[in-house]
Amino acid sequence: MKPLCIAEMGHFFVGGRRARVAGRPVAEIQLVPGSPPYRADMNGEYLVASLYVEHARPEPVTRPCPLLFWHGGGLTGACWDTTPDGREGWKLWFLRRGWHVHVSDAVERGRSGYAPFPEIFPGAPLHRRVNDPWEQFRIGPSHAEGRAHPGHQFPLDHYEDFLRQCVPRFVGTDADMLAAYLALVERVGPCVIIAHSQGGHFACAAAQAAPDLVRALVLLEPSGFGAGAMPDIPVLLLYGDHIARDPRWVTLRAAGGAFAARTPRAALHDLPAEGLAGNGHMLMLERNSDAIAARVQGWLESNL
Amino acid sequence: MKPLCIAEMGHFFVGGRRARVAGRPVAEIQLVPGSPPYRADMNGEYLVASLYVEHARPEPVTRPCPLLFWHGGGLTGACWDTTPDGREGWKLWFLRRGWHVHVSDAVERGRSGYAPFPEIFPGAPLHRRVNDPWEQFRIGPSHAEGRAHPGHQFPLDHYEDFLRQCVPRFVGTDADMLAAYLALVERVGPCVIIAHSQGGHFACAAAQAAPDLVRALVLLEPSGFGAGAMPDIPVLLLYGDHIARDPRWVTLRAAGGAFAARTPRAALHDLPAEGLAGNGHMLMLERNSDAIAARVQGWLESNL
Repeated sequence: MKPLCIAEMGHFFVGGRRARVAGRPVAEIQLVPGSPPYRADMNGEYLVASLYVEHARPEPVTRPCPLLFWHGGGLTGACWDTTPDGREGWKLWFLRRGWHVHVSDAVERGRSGYAPFPEIFPGAPLHRRVNDPWEQFRIGPSHAEGRAHPGHQFPLDHYEDFLRQCVPRFVGTDADMLAAYLALVERVGPCVIIAHSQGGHFACAAAQAAPDLVRALVLLEPSGFGAGAMPDIPVLLLYGDHIARDPRWVTLRAAGGAFAARTPRAALHDLPAEGLAGNGHMLMLERNSDAIAARVQGWLESNL
Repeated sequence: MKPLCIAEMGHFFVGGRRARVAGRPVAEIQLVPGSPPYRADMNGEYLVASLYVEHARPEPVTRPCPLLFWHGGGLTGACWDTTPDGREGWKLWFLRRGWHVHVSDAVERGRSGYAPFPEIFPGAPLHRRVNDPWEQFRIGPSHAEGRAHPGHQFPLDHYEDFLRQCVPRFVGTDADMLAAYLALVERVGPCVIIAHSQGGHFACAAAQAAPDLVRALVLLEPSGFGAGAMPDIPVLLLYGDHIARDPRWVTLRAAGGAFAARTPRAALHDLPAEGLAGNGHMLMLERNSDAIAARVQGWLESNL
């Protein structure tokens, strides 16, 4: 492939709030064998719930605004970067086509970090077992038996490379997550957001809260739609294959249909009806990820 | 600055092991407002303790082997990427000079993910309070009073941007961390490792365990030195300023001196004695980070 020409790349953080921890015991511990004792006192003030954002600006930029990628629950920005089978992911696909791309790790996930104190992030985080993405993301009915749905697009030989991307997720951090995403949108200015699964919920909520700053949304199998009124912007919803095989996905797809029906400039595309069969929930990193990216790019060119 | 020319970039994962969780209660929860209930059953098998590695290969590569950056405790690979004041960090500095750079997030940190189960990673993780890096990394004696050491190189106006990089760290995951770092060294082949603080301990341990695969080490204020016999490779140790002000750092610096004395091809440089004054523990991202990088590059050219 042709070398990438990048004017600038790196990361920044946005958002965050102060929080306090008190009443914890203090211990003297050794952090590294042979090193002097370390006084581990966790009581005090923390800066929590910031958002890690990495970006890359190509040379030249040929698109009208920054492009933001917001991942789904239990994952990090790594899902946009490289596919499990080692091909360039959507971050690089769109970068090569002149977009200034931004990939974030949601609050309390990945490089955004979490606060390991129930006073700050209540409850125990969820985490994905070896079989969960296979069976929940419509790869197939049984991981243990290695059974995949017919014609599946997931790179099955690299399933464990995908599994390694999964990180714990708290439940009940929505307010922090949305606050940080809004801080991001305010920092980059008018932008397009491509959001997956749980990220789709926050992308809708961000567009509802900052209607002048979100120019278009691409929602990949979103699991929610915010709680406000959508601004008058173009919205593309994409859904993969094998939805009828899983009652939970039937419900989620129906919610997407209802959202599209009440949103004037929304377009809902079922990929199988568009000639792209076999995708599960992780459609941006399955074997036909480039073909799906090209559909998204075409829609953006027509609608932005 | 000149655009970067990059032949290839992305991420991969190495390492990891299977682990089981049993006996946990099962709950029906709602992950996103309005979405169907989710059966949260955490009992089963997990793939844990993998290592996230991002890399960028410049066009052309002009250096003899890959360059690996291993961060310190309570941080992620973000510390090599961009300085808190928004300049290019060492990852990009060395990339621009023809190195194929690799930046990892240590096991259980950042994008490597953790397992939120004490059966797998015992104990509660440590986390850094607002004042901790200021006072523990030799920025100054009091964060609350805003007092920094005279002539300090830390970009104080961006202290909170650095603080946002801090993530929780477990204690007692050394075996997992080293196993994953060894898997990385085996994957990339003969390499140079630049390691900071806790990362220095693992870099020494990796060189001791895989003497044919580590060609040189650059240790930035290492907090440990492995437990085996060092191979016959060049090793550079760098220490910053203001060490005499903190008894813990006096001890750590003395351990570095003893390691250098017993390691035939080790060179220990105190930056103040080299004309670079004012650095704290985070010397790779302080205001004179480019000047320190240039010293490292010069040493590598002379010793590799």
